[in-house]
Amino acid sequence: MTTSTASATGTTAASASATKTGAQAPIDFYFDFLSSYGYFASLRIEEIGARHGRSVRWHCMLLGVAVMKVMGLKPLLETPLKNDYVLRDVARYQRRHGLEMARKVSDPMMDPRPAARAFCWVKRQHPGVEGAFARALFDRYWRLGHDLSLNDEIGALAGPLGLDQGALVAGVESDAARTDLRDAVTASLDRGVFGSPFVIVDGEPFWGSDRLEQIDDWLARGGW
Amino acid sequence: MTTSTASATGTTAASASATKTGAQAPIDFYFDFLSSYGYFASLRIEEIGARHGRSVRWHCMLLGVAVMKVMGLKPLLETPLKNDYVLRDVARYQRRHGLEMARKVSDPMMDPRPAARAFCWVKRQHPGVEGAFARALFDRYWRLGHDLSLNDEIGALAGPLGLDQGALVAGVESDAARTDLRDAVTASLDRGVFGSPFVIVDGEPFWGSDRLEQIDDWLARGGW
Repeated sequence: MTTSTASATGTTAASASATKTGAQAPIDFYFDFLSSYGYFASLRIEEIGARHGRSVRWHCMLLGVAVMKVMGLKPLLETPLKNDYVLRDVARYQRRHGLEMARKVSDPMMDPRPAARAFCWVKRQHPGVEGAFARALFDRYWRLGHDLSLNDEIGALAGPLGLDQGALVAGVESDAARTDLRDAVTASLDRGVFGSPFVIVDGEPFWGSDRLEQIDDWLARGGW
Repeated sequence: MTTSTASATGTTAASASATKTGAQAPIDFYFDFLSSYGYFASLRIEEIGARHGRSVRWHCMLLGVAVMKVMGLKPLLETPLKNDYVLRDVARYQRRHGLEMARKVSDPMMDPRPAARAFCWVKRQHPGVEGAFARALFDRYWRLGHDLSLNDEIGALAGPLGLDQGALVAGVESDAARTDLRDAVTASLDRGVFGSPFVIVDGEPFWGSDRLEQIDDWLARGGW
């Protein structure tokens, strides 16, 4: 389901809660392609939004900026105690949701910026397609295990989404995409986004894939 | 409900899942009295365990050792971005669960060690009472807003639980309690405990009050 499809669904199937809070405001969904928890949430956020008549706006952020530079923390897997926990927790989530992933959390990480720039380029050049494109990037990185720091890997996603491969690959390296990514990261920090996934519903922030049920509850009740 | 009551309930109302994983193994519940999320979980963990025929073993840990010394992280409220989030998140949880708290998360923190030593002393001297005592400490600190670094405040909890106030206050300062707390903290780290609340069910670790529903699910299914 693309973002525009979810939006159309929202228009025709407004839930009581969405009406109560007014105006079918979209859900803002922030993620870093590096993040396994972001991947998990990317598989469910559209469905959760659609259930309550909400479309989803997809936004990339960079954990390397938010967590390491702004918060001054170490990456999860370099944090004693938490590293072992994360490996178990991710495996447990996979088993519970039946997710096969060629990539392991402990595998070397890619540079997430080319994928994030590609996302920014699609968002600007083909608005409405960026959600589907983000899901395709997540799928290729986590389920199939490909390294998306390579432009050829990103370019391979163009065809199925009706995008021009050459234009996409050129877009990844464009100044416009670099500027858009920088602006997106700044905007995410301005809104207090520090993790992946991070969801903002009617101004209310929710951090972590383990909050998806709470988001569902929040939308069903129209907040509390 | 005291721990021993929950245990008795478990014996007579063994759930299918508990039988499946064998032997009515207790749930291990770790907390720091400083932790609002630990307080939230302390209000629900016995009920969750009892629903699945499990008793709860209460264990104190110290965030100051696990998070600051071992993991090398800053306290939550000194971490940019996360500080604002935690204030909102705690208030949201309170509203959702109808919890009034005289203490604010942003109030100055007490030294948690006297309360933790009192807990260790009760656990050794009056085994079976420590769960109820921990809940009374949490209640006094968070709901009533009292500073539990003062021995008089801790001593005031003795009467309602049938403990000798003088013995309890002396216990807080005893070498035995100091040794027990040190051992408890070491034991928690050895088991990979790094947060509050932290729950271990049949060897499976769960971090955070937002995982209580997942623990419930895990117990209902007998793991996955």
